[in-house]
Amino acid sequence: MEDKAARTSEGQPIRCKAAVGRKPGEPLIIEEIIVAPPMAREARIKVICTSLCYSDITFWKMKDPPAIWPRIFGHEAIGIVESVGEDVSEVTKGDMVVPIFLPDCGECVDCKSEKSNLCSKFPFQVSPWMTRYESSRFTDLNGQIIHHFLFVSSFSEYTVVDIANLTKIDPVAPPNKACLLSCGVSTGVGAAWKAANVEPGSSVAIFGLGSIGLAVAEGARLCGATKIIGVDVNPEKFEIGKKFGVTDFVQAGADKSVSQVIKEMTGGGADYCFECVGMASLVHEAYASCRKGWGKTVVLGVDKPGSNLSLKSSEVLCDGKSLIGALFGGLKPKSHVPILLKRYIDKELKLDEFITHEVEFKDINKAFDLLLKGGCLRCVIWMNK
Amino acid sequence: MEDKAARTSEGQPIRCKAAVGRKPGEPLIIEEIIVAPPMAREARIKVICTSLCYSDITFWKMKDPPAIWPRIFGHEAIGIVESVGEDVSEVTKGDMVVPIFLPDCGECVDCKSEKSNLCSKFPFQVSPWMTRYESSRFTDLNGQIIHHFLFVSSFSEYTVVDIANLTKIDPVAPPNKACLLSCGVSTGVGAAWKAANVEPGSSVAIFGLGSIGLAVAEGARLCGATKIIGVDVNPEKFEIGKKFGVTDFVQAGADKSVSQVIKEMTGGGADYCFECVGMASLVHEAYASCRKGWGKTVVLGVDKPGSNLSLKSSEVLCDGKSLIGALFGGLKPKSHVPILLKRYIDKELKLDEFITHEVEFKDINKAFDLLLKGGCLRCVIWMNK
Repeated sequence: MEDKAARTSEGQPIRCKAAVGRKPGEPLIIEEIIVAPPMAREARIKVICTSLCYSDITFWKMKDPPAIWPRIFGHEAIGIVESVGEDVSEVTKGDMVVPIFLPDCGECVDCKSEKSNLCSKFPFQVSPWMTRYESSRFTDLNGQIIHHFLFVSSFSEYTVVDIANLTKIDPVAPPNKACLLSCGVSTGVGAAWKAANVEPGSSVAIFGLGSIGLAVAEGARLCGATKIIGVDVNPEKFEIGKKFGVTDFVQAGADKSVSQVIKEMTGGGADYCFECVGMASLVHEAYASCRKGWGKTVVLGVDKPGSNLSLKSSEVLCDGKSLIGALFGGLKPKSHVPILLKRYIDKELKLDEFITHEVEFKDINKAFDLLLKGGCLRCVIWMNK
Repeated sequence: MEDKAARTSEGQPIRCKAAVGRKPGEPLIIEEIIVAPPMAREARIKVICTSLCYSDITFWKMKDPPAIWPRIFGHEAIGIVESVGEDVSEVTKGDMVVPIFLPDCGECVDCKSEKSNLCSKFPFQVSPWMTRYESSRFTDLNGQIIHHFLFVSSFSEYTVVDIANLTKIDPVAPPNKACLLSCGVSTGVGAAWKAANVEPGSSVAIFGLGSIGLAVAEGARLCGATKIIGVDVNPEKFEIGKKFGVTDFVQAGADKSVSQVIKEMTGGGADYCFECVGMASLVHEAYASCRKGWGKTVVLGVDKPGSNLSLKSSEVLCDGKSLIGALFGGLKPKSHVPILLKRYIDKELKLDEFITHEVEFKDINKAFDLLLKGGCLRCVIWMNK
């Protein structure tokens, strides 16, 4: 596993290629950058694969703060530890690791509790810095700071990640597959498994059949849901949905409201509804689609900053439903991601079907085009192919 | 138990006194009315005690639909079965019963499920009629129909109630105490016990220390919560709150936001927050006051029709909190009310402390004055004292 750069560079800055975002919405520029050595409780990672997630695009398009430039995007990845900073015992050089945007310090009351996946020592934020320090490990060749993204910044041959954001995994799985557990697929599967705790025999409605929505379907299928309804504006999504357990389809935007159709299909409403698009109005429709008395609506989609979600007071009071939000599907990164990986190795969890495209690092901007054009679930970017 | 009216009137209309609401906000008029015999699956009840709940006042003040006149209010009561209609085996003449506004048919999927307390055969509604038929059992001496309220209409010496709205109870408790389990106290205690499922050792914040809020405190105390924070605009509420287990108090309307104060008191937020006032904006404050990662906000208060509850999308997504609404505290009337009564008899659950006033039926309008003036939790109205 050890390569030349790693052998010679421990404790030293590494000069390597990165795809740097310099202006909103403009193609990333592949350039040489300097990656500083890891500080205490950090590890420097040689990225093997990374893939593009919709949140990268959201922040890449963004013109106003919290947007910041230049920045290295990318937060769904897999890599090998090149070196570690002081006081790191959890991983060592050569370990296979999945970086995850959601910190898991393992020490705070939240990380120690089974009830929470939101580390309170390092609260999740879209920070331009490292997890533990207000500083960057990236500079360009002019000495200018390049900012981090979601504590991962994987669109670089090397990156530095806090130990709280690293999950060590069994290197048995192909990296392009295991890479998907770093964000999107885990979020969707986790939402069904942990955030909603879908019961066997139940009915599920999924709003938005992108990668996250399809991963929710996959999670619901694994939990034993018997009716898995996909909702999307694009009817072609039903075919691909079937691969992940979607049993029924409702086209959004037709004459009848989606909630009315779902209520009829399920005899009163789905037991669980998942909003995977990030539209406040769709949360209301999902809430309306779930079963009176016990229906649970899980919010997974990221709406634009400042947007509000509105529900009728009388509906909330009288319908006995619950609404819950979840980051990373409610999963605790270090405990649950290895379980998902094992389920993939045991041929229970599907991952291969999410990979619709693979490109070389030099073609990273194609991944953006592919995801924006539609028809792409996950485009894996190989760093050294 | 049998009295003259009951002995002679079975199957016949009963002429008796009722307090009839004839105009919005005007004193009820005590007049003689005719109570028809019960139809199939109904029972006619001789009311022993009734008490005034804030929902009676809300509908009594209301000028526009769903307000309807004339009407017999009252929905928190206890009585004795005078006679039953066809096909009634659950209760019989002489049984002590508590009428409850929330139907519990015992046959539908919801009533059979442990997860729901919202009967789907007879959905809850603020109907002017009987539960099962679109008709009234009340007429005035001019032959004009008088409307029902919340399927109970207990401000009458006799009333007719559907079997789905009747819970038979052990007659061992004093009727003025057991009467309180018919609505308010059960709603509050149930919210802590069933809707929120408060865990031992947890922290609770209660927005609004009226009867419902105090009953939530009592429920939280019984569930073993160790920090029970009362929130109210009136600081005098802390003293009375202490009787029901309130350990801390936050005055609403002070400089610092309530959520900020609660976060400081609890090291991050209360495990459970209860909105007992019925103000959409307060739901937001309660949501903000509960603990990231696992906090649960329970909505119990009735806001005015058409009001909306608004939450920030980013807050819902990123904070991992849940929001749930509950009618009757999530209790299943026929299974859970007898349990609460037993806990009262076993001296675990407090009821006596809720009764601040008692009046004779002829003075029923005083009960309205007392509740509106403040300082009154429950005013019990004795029908035949």
